[in-house]
Amino acid sequence: MTNNSELDALFQSLADPTRRAILARLAHGSASVTDLFAPFDMALPSFLQHLRKLEDGGLIETTKQGRVRTCTLRVGALAPARGWMEEQRLLWEGRHDRLEDYLATLLQGPDTDG
Amino acid sequence: MTNNSELDALFQSLADPTRRAILARLAHGSASVTDLFAPFDMALPSFLQHLRKLEDGGLIETTKQGRVRTCTLRVGALAPARGWMEEQRLLWEGRHDRLEDYLATLLQGPDTDG
Repeated sequence: MTNNSELDALFQSLADPTRRAILARLAHGSASVTDLFAPFDMALPSFLQHLRKLEDGGLIETTKQGRVRTCTLRVGALAPARGWMEEQRLLWEGRHDRLEDYLATLLQGPDTDG
Repeated sequence: MTNNSELDALFQSLADPTRRAILARLAHGSASVTDLFAPFDMALPSFLQHLRKLEDGGLIETTKQGRVRTCTLRVGALAPARGWMEEQRLLWEGRHDRLEDYLATLLQGPDTDG
């Protein structure tokens, strides 16, 4: 069971277009901070804050070799968020099925064998 | 295509345990604000702010009849978030497949028919 604060941090990490773009880029493969930063029209410190948030949320990890810091997507990091949404979908569909059963009962009425 | 600000609001809505608990409750069926509020140990104004955030994020809708305000889950409201995560998974798996192909090539080497 994923704990609440982990899900909080995960969804919080995803609630920003820059961070989602970074993740989409890293899904194609690891990249240096310099390369990741290039397409963004923002100040480097702001960009680094986004990276830190992704790292705190457990979505990426970074390693430093010499002067180059490389960012890598963490496989399966999105799984708890997907799991939560799947639970909601099943709950909803379960309820929906029961509603359909109930409506079918109403439509049939008490005199279906008449 | 879901726009960025819609996804921002959606993920932001999900980044809180109270709001996720409200959604899980509403997946079982609509409920009045009073009934929804009952299990929570917080001040009503804070709770109402969470409801407003869910409404702003498009996850629930509320209707008022007399003095009773009823909250209902919006079917399909989570779909854009699920869609985004599914895209990321496919990107990642596509990359992973290509990596496996590449590794297979390396392992085979140039002398497989020797």
